[in-house]
Amino acid sequence: MKALRKHDFPVEQARRLLEPGPIVLVSTAWKGQRNLMTLGWHMVMGFSPSLLATYIWNENHSFALARRSGQCVINVPGVELLDTLVDIGNCSGREVDKFARFELDAVPARQVQAPLVGQCHSSFECRLHDGSRIGRDNLFIWEIVHAHVARRPRLPRTVHYRGDGKFMVSGAEVSRRGRFKPDML
Amino acid sequence: MKALRKHDFPVEQARRLLEPGPIVLVSTAWKGQRNLMTLGWHMVMGFSPSLLATYIWNENHSFALARRSGQCVINVPGVELLDTLVDIGNCSGREVDKFARFELDAVPARQVQAPLVGQCHSSFECRLHDGSRIGRDNLFIWEIVHAHVARRPRLPRTVHYRGDGKFMVSGAEVSRRGRFKPDML
Repeated sequence: MKALRKHDFPVEQARRLLEPGPIVLVSTAWKGQRNLMTLGWHMVMGFSPSLLATYIWNENHSFALARRSGQCVINVPGVELLDTLVDIGNCSGREVDKFARFELDAVPARQVQAPLVGQCHSSFECRLHDGSRIGRDNLFIWEIVHAHVARRPRLPRTVHYRGDGKFMVSGAEVSRRGRFKPDML
Repeated sequence: MKALRKHDFPVEQARRLLEPGPIVLVSTAWKGQRNLMTLGWHMVMGFSPSLLATYIWNENHSFALARRSGQCVINVPGVELLDTLVDIGNCSGREVDKFARFELDAVPARQVQAPLVGQCHSSFECRLHDGSRIGRDNLFIWEIVHAHVARRPRLPRTVHYRGDGKFMVSGAEVSRRGRFKPDML
């Protein structure tokens, strides 16, 4: 699959892609190692700075790379990558270079060492904002420092995990803009 | 709208409803006050105990009720309630009883004071598991102690917020169970 052309995007609007709760691919790099993991446990925590919390299990190979480097890239794949992201979640970076095995382009980021995943619709470069809860409960709070988003498609068809091997694929967009108070938008 | 009949559900499977990232309604109660808020910032953090993190802004009326009571109910609405949940998010519990205004049934919970929302597809009774980060960054970590889920529809058509008054409605379910290692399910 070809890499998508992405463009700079305002970091404070990262919620447009992340808040709906899609499965993401987390890329990490540290001292010549790199890895990719499939992640569903994340949450927006602020706009400016643009904050995102992730729960990364300490048994995952990516845990050490994320903690030691204090960096990662959060990539949002479309449903075209569903089989790939399942397979990425079912093997370990201790044994295989996942970019090579799954034929994904590792595109250099602007501000962090971890690469963007070329085939993903959007990629958010992150620096560790608060690591005080990593040891206690695997909670990383990241600041998104640079965002890259494809213009086509305007919105990716994302996948959302339900457990037990089952996924929900994102459906129609509906607007209720007219019902909001202006300061709530 | 009529209340849905819900059944007991295993708390360790709460992810099936919550992990896809839907907008939820949070109900709270404390000393004769009760409230409802619309929330998109939440994240599964564990199965057993069944943990859920929420970011509740400290300016929200629900913040004090949740903090003081150490309890809440997380309710998952279907798209039929879209206008209602937008309107709930655009008024304050300081001025109005939202259950009454929006004609929602406040159904008694089993283990907490906060009520279930009758019209929602599923409701998760929560007790505060870790409040040490509430003051610092509005982060509540809850344990789901009792779960109630409707059998019809089997899956709700949930709504997922993108910001700017726009929502994604959940689409088709797809299974990739066969691609998973058994211990990854």
